[in-house]
Amino acid sequence: MECIFCKMSLGEIPVDKIYENDNFFSIKDMNQKIPGHSLVISKKHFEHSLDLPSSLGIDFFDAVKNTSRGLMEEYSAGGFNVVGNNFGASGQEVMHFHFHILPRKKGDGIKLFD
Amino acid sequence: MECIFCKMSLGEIPVDKIYENDNFFSIKDMNQKIPGHSLVISKKHFEHSLDLPSSLGIDFFDAVKNTSRGLMEEYSAGGFNVVGNNFGASGQEVMHFHFHILPRKKGDGIKLFD
Repeated sequence: MECIFCKMSLGEIPVDKIYENDNFFSIKDMNQKIPGHSLVISKKHFEHSLDLPSSLGIDFFDAVKNTSRGLMEEYSAGGFNVVGNNFGASGQEVMHFHFHILPRKKGDGIKLFD
Repeated sequence: MECIFCKMSLGEIPVDKIYENDNFFSIKDMNQKIPGHSLVISKKHFEHSLDLPSSLGIDFFDAVKNTSRGLMEEYSAGGFNVVGNNFGASGQEVMHFHFHILPRKKGDGIKLFD
């Protein structure tokens, strides 16, 4: 078992979870692109969105919403981006399903896909 | 009713749908940031992810997966990004739930959140 997110899910690597439900947990990204940059990660190993059973979409949005609400409060953010990279060609670095959550403030100068 | 995505959903503005299910439809973005740039849009009016009932997550992933598979084939892409902007501070321009899908190729030079 070499997958770092599987090790986190199984408790083999301890992490501070922001939120969790039956199928997902969220943590702060260890390499923060912007303050509050966090990840929503599937508890079971799926490689990317095409590999995720659609039935898990309910718990996915539950995790995204609860994580984002907390981040907006913690970072006094006015919004957030939800970003999923799928396959290496898209920039996916860990081949275990995860989405990035980026708390945003008006005029923070961050640009997505320019 | 001034919402452009509601008008598309109701057929008041004709669109070429890539895919649709009970709760979402997908179209090519009219202002393509990269070739194949598409949108997955909720049929009912929700403002953003916090407003979307989590139960719709099943149909959301069904739409994302079917749309992305088609785009990867059409554009010979090796991967794709799924991007949701929530609230104006994040770059959301139309205040009706939608996610961007960006077909990607290795070495295409596109960078997300840098």
